[in-house]
Amino acid sequence: MNSSYTVFGIKTGIIIPGDNITDIILCALKVPDTLKDGDIIVIAESALASSEGCIIKLDEVKPSEAALELSRRYNTEPRLTEVVLRESDSIVGGIPGFLLCMKSGTLLPNAGVDGSNAPEGTVVTLPKNPDGSAERIHNEIFEKTGIRAGIIIADSRTHAMRLGCSGVAIGCYGITAVSDEKGRKDLFGRALEVTELAIADNIASAAELVMGEANESTPVAIIRGLGLEINKESGVQSIEPSGCLFMGVAMNSNPSLFN
Amino acid sequence: MNSSYTVFGIKTGIIIPGDNITDIILCALKVPDTLKDGDIIVIAESALASSEGCIIKLDEVKPSEAALELSRRYNTEPRLTEVVLRESDSIVGGIPGFLLCMKSGTLLPNAGVDGSNAPEGTVVTLPKNPDGSAERIHNEIFEKTGIRAGIIIADSRTHAMRLGCSGVAIGCYGITAVSDEKGRKDLFGRALEVTELAIADNIASAAELVMGEANESTPVAIIRGLGLEINKESGVQSIEPSGCLFMGVAMNSNPSLFN
Repeated sequence: MNSSYTVFGIKTGIIIPGDNITDIILCALKVPDTLKDGDIIVIAESALASSEGCIIKLDEVKPSEAALELSRRYNTEPRLTEVVLRESDSIVGGIPGFLLCMKSGTLLPNAGVDGSNAPEGTVVTLPKNPDGSAERIHNEIFEKTGIRAGIIIADSRTHAMRLGCSGVAIGCYGITAVSDEKGRKDLFGRALEVTELAIADNIASAAELVMGEANESTPVAIIRGLGLEINKESGVQSIEPSGCLFMGVAMNSNPSLFN
Repeated sequence: MNSSYTVFGIKTGIIIPGDNITDIILCALKVPDTLKDGDIIVIAESALASSEGCIIKLDEVKPSEAALELSRRYNTEPRLTEVVLRESDSIVGGIPGFLLCMKSGTLLPNAGVDGSNAPEGTVVTLPKNPDGSAERIHNEIFEKTGIRAGIIIADSRTHAMRLGCSGVAIGCYGITAVSDEKGRKDLFGRALEVTELAIADNIASAAELVMGEANESTPVAIIRGLGLEINKESGVQSIEPSGCLFMGVAMNSNPSLFN
């Protein structure tokens, strides 16, 4: 028997601050039999952030000296740069038009601050606590429907030397985000060399194919049939820069990169 | 109407040098109605490489001086290091146990040379020409069935500061691998800031969820219902290191990194 699963894109209206994202999802669901135990619900981080009011009016932002210097060096908008600076744990560097930032153990352009799909003159930051929001949504859905679903908060990101954005999970509740295959054997009975699978990132990518980045108004996807256990795990584990092949190489060549 | 698509994992036997991968796929297909126009067939690069005989016996490899020096510096197996060196366009650096390599415009650990899912004492290299193989498979399937399918050759790779591997496309024929959304508007009618979507990478990730890395013997997935146009485009576009945010930052901090 071949395994299979299905991805449904869920359309909603525009989501604004104060909206309850759980209610919006439950209202919008028109997939067969609405929701089932074991479904995984993928939510675009921008929709979650909008509902949580993570919207900043650029008019009200005064760039600091540090932001002005960064914006001169990397040709970025000064007020946007100030927001990026506030949202980042550290600035790793930049190329013209973008800053590369560390935030919550991941590396991302402009700390996830985005002018797309936000009202004119505003930017949307990442949700404050994507894992916490995922858990809250999981619990609200269980309370309202009796169904246990996995929740992933997804972002669309570029990767080193890849053209174009693909989906990554920035928040997770109810499934194991990274599965450890240690001890499993390959086709020839040898121990696997690479043992960790980014399940939640793969699911976020699968969802992105029906969600889109433009005016599709499809900020939610349901993944049905994957057969993953719904558990009480929270979060997407991150790695230390020194254990990351890409950043390890960059740090070896310039030890001050993270200072 | 909500959009949806389905992913089917396709089991095969172990694939060995000389196998015709097209025949193996067509024999193994048991999805509803076997194959349909517009289906996308995702093939694990390791299965393709095995069928194409990209298997190297480590006993027959004599490490060069350069390989010996790299293996001392990064604590890698000398014969494997020699194979990695031959397979790479350049070595960017390394961390203990892994070399970071440039190959065909992408950045990857050990140039894709892998000891998993290869017979004892051997390693499998990446397929020599994944785009060409994808086109050949597309043509063979059309000749045998009259069906036009998109073909993606997929690998499983780590990304900067992400734990675990996720799917990426290293070869493509018949679909647009990276879609350019330039000129499209966001929810509020503004031009999109990020306009390129890594469609083929997202599809490779969606497929990986049913393919696995261990002894699943599921090296093929069918993606049905995405609605992508099947065209005559070949390849996954790459970017210049200077235009890549991650490598741009690393190069700014150490201009000799790519020399």
